[in-house]
Amino acid sequence: MELVTIDDIRAAADRISGAVVRTPLLPCPWADADRPLWLKPENLQPIGAFKLRGAQNAIARLDERSRSRGVVAYSSGNHAQAVAYAARTFGIPAHIVMPDVTPQVKIDNTRGYGAEVVLVPIAERESAALELVEKLGAVLVPPFDHPDVIAGQGTIGLEIAEDLPGVELVLVPVSGGGLSSGIATAVKTLCPGARVVGVEPELAGDARESLRAGTLVDWPIERRARTIADGLRSQLSDLTFAHLRAYLDDIVTVSEDEIRTAMGVLATKGRLVAEPSGAVGLAAYLSRVGDLPRGRTVIVVSGGNVAPSLLADVLGA
Amino acid sequence: MELVTIDDIRAAADRISGAVVRTPLLPCPWADADRPLWLKPENLQPIGAFKLRGAQNAIARLDERSRSRGVVAYSSGNHAQAVAYAARTFGIPAHIVMPDVTPQVKIDNTRGYGAEVVLVPIAERESAALELVEKLGAVLVPPFDHPDVIAGQGTIGLEIAEDLPGVELVLVPVSGGGLSSGIATAVKTLCPGARVVGVEPELAGDARESLRAGTLVDWPIERRARTIADGLRSQLSDLTFAHLRAYLDDIVTVSEDEIRTAMGVLATKGRLVAEPSGAVGLAAYLSRVGDLPRGRTVIVVSGGNVAPSLLADVLGA
Repeated sequence: MELVTIDDIRAAADRISGAVVRTPLLPCPWADADRPLWLKPENLQPIGAFKLRGAQNAIARLDERSRSRGVVAYSSGNHAQAVAYAARTFGIPAHIVMPDVTPQVKIDNTRGYGAEVVLVPIAERESAALELVEKLGAVLVPPFDHPDVIAGQGTIGLEIAEDLPGVELVLVPVSGGGLSSGIATAVKTLCPGARVVGVEPELAGDARESLRAGTLVDWPIERRARTIADGLRSQLSDLTFAHLRAYLDDIVTVSEDEIRTAMGVLATKGRLVAEPSGAVGLAAYLSRVGDLPRGRTVIVVSGGNVAPSLLADVLGA
Repeated sequence: MELVTIDDIRAAADRISGAVVRTPLLPCPWADADRPLWLKPENLQPIGAFKLRGAQNAIARLDERSRSRGVVAYSSGNHAQAVAYAARTFGIPAHIVMPDVTPQVKIDNTRGYGAEVVLVPIAERESAALELVEKLGAVLVPPFDHPDVIAGQGTIGLEIAEDLPGVELVLVPVSGGGLSSGIATAVKTLCPGARVVGVEPELAGDARESLRAGTLVDWPIERRARTIADGLRSQLSDLTFAHLRAYLDDIVTVSEDEIRTAMGVLATKGRLVAEPSGAVGLAAYLSRVGDLPRGRTVIVVSGGNVAPSLLADVLGA
């Protein structure tokens, strides 16, 4: 299987420059002295999550004729908003298929970026999306299972390597594996001495189990859906699994309580609003000291789209 | 009176580069179409506030021999942490005089950066600081009333002009006037078409009154202390007043409720934790539409050191 290369990631960086925020590394003076810490705040992208990088790159890669017919995506989460927002920067139509149980605020946000939202029963979202692709001649933008999406997310790793060449550990959330594949590819290529470790909720620890088993392990959705980290309920694809086997050093898991605590620390000490999925890296840093190498550490805060009530709740705890 | 120049600010930028975060401009897709909005998140500096820029520049400007004897500051707020943190980057001692009523968390934070904290009755803090200066041969770093501090804060304006040369409006909090003086100097010099407007709480609207009157107006501290924005209770000095008269276009004021609402919007839509003082710019943007010019707007989010309970409170409201 052909893997994404550092050249693909460099090309993606040129392509998406100006359309995404080049996030800084934020030093954390409150970190342990022997594990100096920087946060990579991808929650500060305009849509509140890293997903914009992959969507922007995937759409930029289309030839102009295909692109003009628009794009389709199915998602109830950050990918929906990423595709809608990216499509608007190209002035092309976006059709987003969402389950009819999607919270109204996410529907409104996606429509707010100018997308056409199509609500369908949850079991029909894939088929509805493929129907739209067929009918409109539009292109489907997948959330993680595509080289252009992986290369786009990989630009985060490129920026880490540029800003902190002596990085020793990068902690990155793992769900479908687009983000972790891209970042691991970039960081391990540019900083071979660094370790890249994925982080999953214990309650959705399927990627960890797959990597240990050496083969993709299936956890039914009801099992993965138990975690509060709603962005980390997807499973690896063959493509992302191949990247993680090639480049990822390890995966650790964190508990739901550890995730909530980390959200609170990010808010009070990092002044960042993170969604649960965006806080798993810090949860591992705070709670899995024994399982992680020491040294200069970067944590990818992947997103910040969280219900105000949940944020208030972790602050009050 | 000699004012800080753009050359002073450029020199400050070179001097503090690497020691402070070069914060990005964050585009806000949720803003009004005719008032496109970017946030300048100075709450993401390592100490959680812009104050680091001025302190770092002021200490860098000292000759090595004076500097080696250390620095002194009196403050219970962000300036204390800024001087402590900056001194540590130079490996020199910092002595911070704080009122003995200062909340323990602020004392701990300042000590955490390696500073010696001296607690005194509130009325004695200035004299205690001057005594330390005398005794140690150390240098006093003032919170705003100094050209080097103003030039350091002005680097924010330089970065705004670099990143968005077509900026039309900059909203900046006003307290002692160091931040607003520096930013107004940089922005009005580099982008003469832009307007720079200060924002104050109504309950601490002394700078607005001073600018209208054309002379420094004194509000007793009990009157200024009513606002929730604890970082905006200082008054202008002759030096900062002169800068604001030369460069600031206007000052608007916002209510306490408007500040709280803006804190909530920054958290939920901007994914940023702001202290009340850091939210006044957005409060003006949201609530003073009629008083502000339209067009490309930058809001300086000056700091994010807020009690978790207050943040939880504005989120639950």
